[in-house]
Amino acid sequence: QENFENDSYESNEYAGVVTGLAWTPVGGDILFIETLLNRGKGQLTLSGQLGDVMKESAMAALSFLKAHADLLDIDYRIFDQYNLHIHVPAGAVPKDGPSAGITMLTAIASALTQRRVKPNLAMTGEITLRGKVLPVGGIKEKILAAKRAGIKEIILCQKNRKDIEEIEPRYITDLTFHYVENAMEVLALALLHEQVKNPVHFVLQDEAKPNSSVVV
Amino acid sequence: QENFENDSYESNEYAGVVTGLAWTPVGGDILFIETLLNRGKGQLTLSGQLGDVMKESAMAALSFLKAHADLLDIDYRIFDQYNLHIHVPAGAVPKDGPSAGITMLTAIASALTQRRVKPNLAMTGEITLRGKVLPVGGIKEKILAAKRAGIKEIILCQKNRKDIEEIEPRYITDLTFHYVENAMEVLALALLHEQVKNPVHFVLQDEAKPNSSVVV
Amino acid sequence: QENFENDSYESNEYAGVVTGLAWTPVGGDILFIETLLNRGKGQLTLSGQLGDVMKESAMAALSFLKAHADLLDIDYRIFDQYNLHIHVPAGAVPKDGPSAGITMLTAIASALTQRRVKPNLAMTGEITLRGKVLPVGGIKEKILAAKRAGIKEIILCQKNRKDIEEIEPRYITDLTFHYVENAMEVLALALLHEQVKNPVHFVLQDEAKPNSSVVV
Amino acid sequence: QENFENDSYESNEYAGVVTGLAWTPVGGDILFIETLLNRGKGQLTLSGQLGDVMKESAMAALSFLKAHADLLDIDYRIFDQYNLHIHVPAGAVPKDGPSAGITMLTAIASALTQRRVKPNLAMTGEITLRGKVLPVGGIKEKILAAKRAGIKEIILCQKNRKDIEEIEPRYITDLTFHYVENAMEVLALALLHEQVKNPVHFVLQDEAKPNSSVVV
Amino acid sequence: QENFENDSYESNEYAGVVTGLAWTPVGGDILFIETLLNRGKGQLTLSGQLGDVMKESAMAALSFLKAHADLLDIDYRIFDQYNLHIHVPAGAVPKDGPSAGITMLTAIASALTQRRVKPNLAMTGEITLRGKVLPVGGIKEKILAAKRAGIKEIILCQKNRKDIEEIEPRYITDLTFHYVENAMEVLALALLHEQVKNPVHFVLQDEAKPNSSVVV
Amino acid sequence: QENFENDSYESNEYAGVVTGLAWTPVGGDILFIETLLNRGKGQLTLSGQLGDVMKESAMAALSFLKAHADLLDIDYRIFDQYNLHIHVPAGAVPKDGPSAGITMLTAIASALTQRRVKPNLAMTGEITLRGKVLPVGGIKEKILAAKRAGIKEIILCQKNRKDIEEIEPRYITDLTFHYVENAMEVLALALLHEQVKNPVHFVLQDEAKPNSSVVV
Ligand SMILES: [Ca+2]
Ligand SMILES: [Ca+2]
Ligand SMILES: [Ca+2]
Ligand SMILES: [Ca+2]
Ligand SMILES: [Ca+2]
Ligand SMILES: [Ca+2]
Ligand SMILES: [Ca+2]
Ligand SMILES: [Ca+2]
Ligand SMILES: [Ca+2]
Ligand SMILES: [Ca+2]
Ligand SMILES: [Ca+2]
Ligand SMILES: [Ca+2]
Repeated sequence: QENFENDSYESNEYAGVVTGLAWTPVGGDILFIETLLNRGKGQLTLSGQLGDVMKESAMAALSFLKAHADLLDIDYRIFDQYNLHIHVPAGAVPKDGPSAGITMLTAIASALTQRRVKPNLAMTGEITLRGKVLPVGGIKEKILAAKRAGIKEIILCQKNRKDIEEIEPRYITDLTFHYVENAMEVLALALLHEQVKNPVHFVLQDEAKPNSSVVV
Repeated sequence: QENFENDSYESNEYAGVVTGLAWTPVGGDILFIETLLNRGKGQLTLSGQLGDVMKESAMAALSFLKAHADLLDIDYRIFDQYNLHIHVPAGAVPKDGPSAGITMLTAIASALTQRRVKPNLAMTGEITLRGKVLPVGGIKEKILAAKRAGIKEIILCQKNRKDIEEIEPRYITDLTFHYVENAMEVLALALLHEQVKNPVHFVLQDEAKPNSSVVV
Repeated sequence: QENFENDSYESNEYAGVVTGLAWTPVGGDILFIETLLNRGKGQLTLSGQLGDVMKESAMAALSFLKAHADLLDIDYRIFDQYNLHIHVPAGAVPKDGPSAGITMLTAIASALTQRRVKPNLAMTGEITLRGKVLPVGGIKEKILAAKRAGIKEIILCQKNRKDIEEIEPRYITDLTFHYVENAMEVLALALLHEQVKNPVHFVLQDEAKPNSSVVV
Repeated sequence: QENFENDSYESNEYAGVVTGLAWTPVGGDILFIETLLNRGKGQLTLSGQLGDVMKESAMAALSFLKAHADLLDIDYRIFDQYNLHIHVPAGAVPKDGPSAGITMLTAIASALTQRRVKPNLAMTGEITLRGKVLPVGGIKEKILAAKRAGIKEIILCQKNRKDIEEIEPRYITDLTFHYVENAMEVLALALLHEQVKNPVHFVLQDEAKPNSSVVV
Repeated sequence: QENFENDSYESNEYAGVVTGLAWTPVGGDILFIETLLNRGKGQLTLSGQLGDVMKESAMAALSFLKAHADLLDIDYRIFDQYNLHIHVPAGAVPKDGPSAGITMLTAIASALTQRRVKPNLAMTGEITLRGKVLPVGGIKEKILAAKRAGIKEIILCQKNRKDIEEIEPRYITDLTFHYVENAMEVLALALLHEQVKNPVHFVLQDEAKPNSSVVV
Repeated sequence: QENFENDSYESNEYAGVVTGLAWTPVGGDILFIETLLNRGKGQLTLSGQLGDVMKESAMAALSFLKAHADLLDIDYRIFDQYNLHIHVPAGAVPKDGPSAGITMLTAIASALTQRRVKPNLAMTGEITLRGKVLPVGGIKEKILAAKRAGIKEIILCQKNRKDIEEIEPRYITDLTFHYVENAMEVLALALLHEQVKNPVHFVLQDEAKPNSSVVV
């Protein structure tokens, strides 16, 4: 009863929204990872009919960002005082697999920093807990779909370079590929230094003061 | 053992009740999204035999409203100090799909603001976390059912305009269509500025005062 | 190994016990909705092998009563400081469907107010979150069972009137029918103004005092 | 790999242990409901491979006792400050059905009051939330098993009297039957006024003092 | 992919480790119940692919020990301030049944008291909540496996004596059997009075002081 | 849609990452156990499509480390004030079995101490709660994969020595084998005394001070 169509790249006006690439039995497609932070107690909500592997990808991306919050100038208290909701439309389409890992990483980081995502950028790649980027499948279909959707630059795992080299060059003129090995390279490429218009200002409470605190 | 019949539009006397459109194997139907806020700790209850996709739609709508509470003059503390119950009669009929997204959004917003919903209005459309409205299926059946039920105005996704244009015009005289692209347009169209008669007055406690609080 | 028999109407001596009507493959039957309030933290327990639809009916009835506690002179703190247990004997017989909605509503309201239920009364009808009463099926079998069990008055949805009119009149002499459209009508018909003998006296604690509280 | 045998009545030396009657495809048997109270936060643990119906019976029995704690001189704080564990050996044998209801009621009441259970007594009957005792099946097999096990007195629902009257009298000489209609009759028959030797002394804390407390 | 072999008795150097006996389709085997107490909030963790019956055995053994902590000079606060982990290697082999009941009882008691377990001892028997020891099956296979593994003494239920008497005596020379009826006999036989070398010293906090406390 | 390849040993630059060995239907492979500690309340998260046996292995390894925190100079408060995430890439490949036990043990210990893992080291072996190392299967395939991946030293259970001796020696030149019997031997072999570059400094709060505390 639903009618689906191929989506187009939209814009980078929202913090927390990043374009990913999906493989489906009928060809590639782009998808949007949407994230929102709302005041709460640090709960993670995942929606959009995500399978277990995709949910675990989100959890790994979030843990990585918590562990490296300093490098991105993220106030750690956001993780305790805000809830994170990640949604992947279309809501009725089941999605799974690890290949949205770096897209979810970037979307969460953009939401946390309110930094604008590079325009006309898409990405696909698995993320591990230590921030390693792993290669994923379906590259050819994904790239063609990206081009069709108006994407200009694509971030991929270094180990997926060979998959690009197998595509006939005339199909991918006008596309720029960035090959990466770890999460920090992804974020350096994908997040602009400027914030979005009307960025959210996080209201953070002091943490309960202990008698004393020690660094070991 | 149950006998079902096609429902009719009822009224806009209750805050939190909005008319949606459903597709069923035997044709379209209208349905009512009912919401109630009761003092509590911010729990969300969904009933009416809703499937996972529909539950996730409600969660996305609620997250969107939390993130944009300011724009609707909603006191954020309601989300922490009240429970939200969403019910969709008839209780024994299983329901699923993302197309009640904007209806649930409007129903929750009406309950939170106690603003009256425009009379004789129905709507159908998926909502995403960033507030984008997506097209849905079964439009022809839904529209005919809406008309039969006494509906006069209908909100749809811009991308569903073509589905309306395919319906023979004589079937839809007297119906006004509003095509939208995002959640704020839906709310602007659907919520009147006046409140319902005898609106609920929310009793809100001060939040626990931290030592200090910072905006970053 | 169990031997079941048709039950008879019993009495209205207990607050919180209301007679409902059930349809089964071998004919109608009456059933008793039993409710108890015990000091606790607001937990809801449902027992008696209730299916999901029936559990959701109980949740809708409870939410409705919370939202309209004032109209029934119910101190809202009971909902936070007492647990509510709803049980439907016989314990081994699976039960489902929305038609016990108004019976559960009345049983909970009687338990909360300790008001006596009208004698020789039974009822069947779905309840929605906004308090609308919906028609249910199996009316003929239910009515015959009610009569056999000693019931004198029956509350039904206005939309079930036509089902009564299809029953041959001689079968339903001595029965009085009350047709209703909403929950408040049910409670006005079903709850006497007097309390049961030896009503429970609820012990309620002051709520934690906030720094201040605001009504918006 | 397990070898089972028919059990015999044991003794009434422990508070919280009561003899029930079970029907099995190979005849009747007795079983022991064992209960223990340990300091905790009011958690209920059920073990012994109990089915859902039997678990709900235990919950109904416990709710009934909470609601009528005064009549048995039970300090209500025990329910909040102790955990209740109900176990039914043998641990590997699945058990279900509502007929252990009054046995569980008596076992919990004995544990809470530390009152001794009448010697050589067994019982079978469903309990409802308002304390009504309902008839159960398999009476003939259960009675013969009780006699074989050394039982002298049996508590049954009034409505099971006819099942006893169908048993050939010579099989049940030396057995005394008590027919009851409600929970209080069961407890009056089953619990002696004396406590067991070395009864447990419950250590109860004052409840957190509210600003004030009201009885409504 | 795993290679399993019959295990041998190891030693009694660790508190909390006790040797049990298992029946498997290919004969008897010994197994080790391992327990550890770590600072926490009283959580119970069970691992080693244990089935429901075996998990319930552990719960019954723990409840029994809580209720009789005084008799073993166990400070009750350990149960609230430490977590208990019970693991049964090999981790990939599913295990079930009630016959490890007394072994788990002894292992937990040894962990709590840090008392050394009698050397070259094994045991098999179900435990009930009131501390009764019930007979179990597979005795012949279990005994032969115990002997093969270097076990010298075995604790069994009194009612399993007949199973031992059916074994040809020459197979069980050098084995001493202890027949018991209740949990306290098991612990008296199995736990030496000396503690293990380097026993754990439990650090226990004072419990929150109530306004006052009463013994009823 | 995913393309997988055999992985190579990577480096020991990260604390908390240890190389394990896996058996698969198409031969051996290496895998990486990745761990991260983030400020939190002591929650354990396991991801990478791990089966129940593998999850229980992680739980046993963690419990062992908690119980022996002193021996590794780990401040026990980390367990209460940090969350532990264990992930095993590739995220879409289901993994199970107990043989990653010692690898998970070492990874957690490295994360907790920030000590560097010995370079070019891999390991396989089950861990029990008392720290015993058990033999595992698939040794030949695992060893060949390790060699292919650039591994130089391998830790195995003493009881797997015979599996190594069955491999033709020319296949395993340049490989050093360490046979162990318990967890402490594993950690002594695998963890260097130096910390990684830029080790994490854990920020630990004083524990809530009780009125007094006793050691028993
Ligand atoms: Ca699409
Ligand atoms: Ca995949
Ligand atoms: Ca309808
Ligand atoms: Ca759909
Ligand atoms: Ca009946
Ligand atoms: Ca139904
Ligand atoms: Ca038996
Ligand atoms: Ca039954
Ligand atoms: Ca073995
Ligand atoms: Ca068994
Ligand atoms: Ca691999
Ligand atoms: Ca395995």
